[in-house]
Parts: sequence; structure tokens; C-alpha cells
Amino acid sequence: MSARVLRFHFDFISPYSYLAWCRVADFARDHDLRVEPRPTLFAALLNHLGHKGPGEIIEKRTYMFKDCQRMAVQLDVPFVPVFSHPFNPLPSLRATLLDMDDETRQQLVTNLFDATWAQSRDVGLAEVVAAICADVGVPDALTRIQEPEIKKGLLDASQEAIRLGVFGVPTMIVDDELFWGNDSFPHLANYLAGNDPVRPEDMRRWAAVRASAQRR
Amino acid sequence: MSARVLRFHFDFISPYSYLAWCRVADFARDHDLRVEPRPTLFAALLNHLGHKGPGEIIEKRTYMFKDCQRMAVQLDVPFVPVFSHPFNPLPSLRATLLDMDDETRQQLVTNLFDATWAQSRDVGLAEVVAAICADVGVPDALTRIQEPEIKKGLLDASQEAIRLGVFGVPTMIVDDELFWGNDSFPHLANYLAGNDPVRPEDMRRWAAVRASAQRR
Repeated sequence: MSARVLRFHFDFISPYSYLAWCRVADFARDHDLRVEPRPTLFAALLNHLGHKGPGEIIEKRTYMFKDCQRMAVQLDVPFVPVFSHPFNPLPSLRATLLDMDDETRQQLVTNLFDATWAQSRDVGLAEVVAAICADVGVPDALTRIQEPEIKKGLLDASQEAIRLGVFGVPTMIVDDELFWGNDSFPHLANYLAGNDPVRPEDMRRWAAVRASAQRR
Repeated sequence: MSARVLRFHFDFISPYSYLAWCRVADFARDHDLRVEPRPTLFAALLNHLGHKGPGEIIEKRTYMFKDCQRMAVQLDVPFVPVFSHPFNPLPSLRATLLDMDDETRQQLVTNLFDATWAQSRDVGLAEVVAAICADVGVPDALTRIQEPEIKKGLLDASQEAIRLGVFGVPTMIVDDELFWGNDSFPHLANYLAGNDPVRPEDMRRWAAVRASAQRR
């Protein structure tokens, strides 16, 4: 278990997270990484940033679904109209924090993403989530996802993401370096190969760039 | 001049617009398109949407500059710390609306983008913009970009973008179809080849997706 860790921050509500999850297992195998799924409440990020998600702006929402359908065809994975959007992501995100071994957790995340974006099941319902948990051998999820430490666990995980600088999902983190979104896989590959063109002195120069105008 | 038109909506303030502009001439040649540059005040889009730009959220701003540096290396184009950000984009955007032939306008857009993101010149200053205009044979820009019809022209162009559904820059439009951002070039290529996987019936199904939860 000496493989480098790739933290995968996601929310089931995010179709871009689904598409990235479809790729990340192969990517991790190719680059000798161990994927740690990190459930992250996208709403908590947006509230922290005072920002809107792409599903909250009608023009962007329309485009997002088209864009994801096009990306899904590129990746050769299913993508069907979701049962509802936005939906309540709490039951599904909490379920991924229940006690289980790593392999089961990976499968559960996969199955919950598939249920949402490939099968159009109503994963906003705790009963549906519990059935998906039972399928992978995680019993009693209906009651267990209501336990205070699981609820707190999701809030803590979301706060930790904010502390790490996560501003959207999916975000992949290796070492302390963040890679946001599906188009960042090639950048992450370069980073892992020691070929990231961004050097610390570049970041110092960029950090020194100041505003000379503000939006009215 | 029977080539299909690609409307290229951009703002010089957007490094992603610069990177897309670096690619669009080759793309247009490969696909027999005529590029029409459409200056679009990003701030007007954001004000309309009640949204924040990536430069207005510190975590996203930091990431954006890294991401663009990585993309610039992929594209093999220069990208250096900008003289200021955000800066006043009005002089440069207005300059692209002055009377000139199409070829000159393309060159002016290229030179203004390069001045900003490859040469770190202060294109927030009308004098600098006027000098860049003079270099491509557009005289008297310093006074002409102050003319009421040019000022109105930029606001009208931005309003037209909003009317067309543009929510960010760069956005490329062919027919009535919008393609947003650098990762949309392959999607646009599929569309032009008649291979867009998104069909009208898909969009009707997606448009029927309703919310079952709202962010607090």
C-alpha cells in the first residue's frame, strides 16, 4: 500500500463528477495511484464561496447537460436524464462514509453514480440509497446514515475540502496539488511525471498580479 | 465568402479566451469556417447572471492561472503574468469595433490578446491600445474609441451575446449552437461533421428534469 494517494472530491449531484469517476480507476491504475473517494457537499463549497453552481443558472444548466452528454459519448459511458436536478445528495454522500473496506467503498461510489446518471434512479431517497448499499453488502444503511457521527462526518469532510482549497467538484488532489474538472487529467499526468510546467516562482509572480479595475 | 460563420465571443480579460483565440484560426481553416470576432464584456454577462467570474474567487483565480499556464504549454503558446488582473477591458474591446477590413480586425484581436497575455503590456490604457491599433494601420484610435457609437456598439454586442444565451467567454457559436470553453473544440468538430450526439429529443427530456431539492 505504498502507492501515492489521489484524493477524489465529488458530489453525486455533479454530472462532471460522475464522468471523472468513470475515468479515475483506469487513470489510477496507469499511474500507480490509490484512489480515496472524498464525499464533498457541493452546496457547502458554494455557500462558502458565495457562488452559484452550473445547475443554478438556466443557460449554464442547459449547456452542462449537453456538454456532459457529449463527454459521455467521448468516454463511451452511459448518460441519461437524471430523475431530478438538483436533488438531495445527503443520503448518498453519507452512505459512502459508513464502515466498509476500501474495495466495497469504491464499488458503492460507482453504483451510486451509475444509479444517478446511468439509471435515473431516485437517489435522493434514503430507501433507494439503502438498497444500493445492501447490494454491495453494506447492511442497515437506512438507519446508519441517520447517525449523528455520519452526518457530522460529511460536514467535516466538506470543511476539510474547503480548507484544502477545493472550490468545485470533481477535484483530484495529489500531494497538495489540486486538479479540477475533467480536462485536468492530462495536467495531473504531467504533474505525476514530474513535468508540471508550473513552478513555484511562476506562482509567486502570478500571486503578485494586482487588480487595476473592478466590476461595477 | 460562402463559408459557414463561427462567431467567437471573447473578452481580453479572459485568459481562456486568449488560449481559444490561439487555436481558432487553425480550427476554422480545417473546418472551412469564417471567424467573426465578437467582443463581449464579460462583466456584463456576470452582472446579467448574478454570477462571479473565476478571477473573482481567490481559490479559483489561483487555479485559473496555473490551469492556463498548463494549457499554454500544451498549445505551445506564450503565457506570462499579466500586467494587472482584473484590468479595464473597455479600450481594447472597443478598439475591435472600429471600422477596418476583416483581415485587419483578426490581426488586431490577435495583437491585443498577445499584448495582454504574452507581453504583459498594460492594455487597460487607451494609449497602449491606440498604439497597437496604429501598428495594424488603424489610425486615431485614441479618440475614436471614445465615440458614443463605439461605446454603444460594445454594450449592444454584449446584450446580443446575452440574448443568444452566452454565459461565459470564450463562446463559439455556429448556427444557433453554443460551444463554451477550450474543451469544446472537439464537440464543435463533431457538430460540424454532423455527429453531435445531442439530439432535439434529448434536450426536451433534459429540459423536463425538475428540482426536488434546493440549496439552503
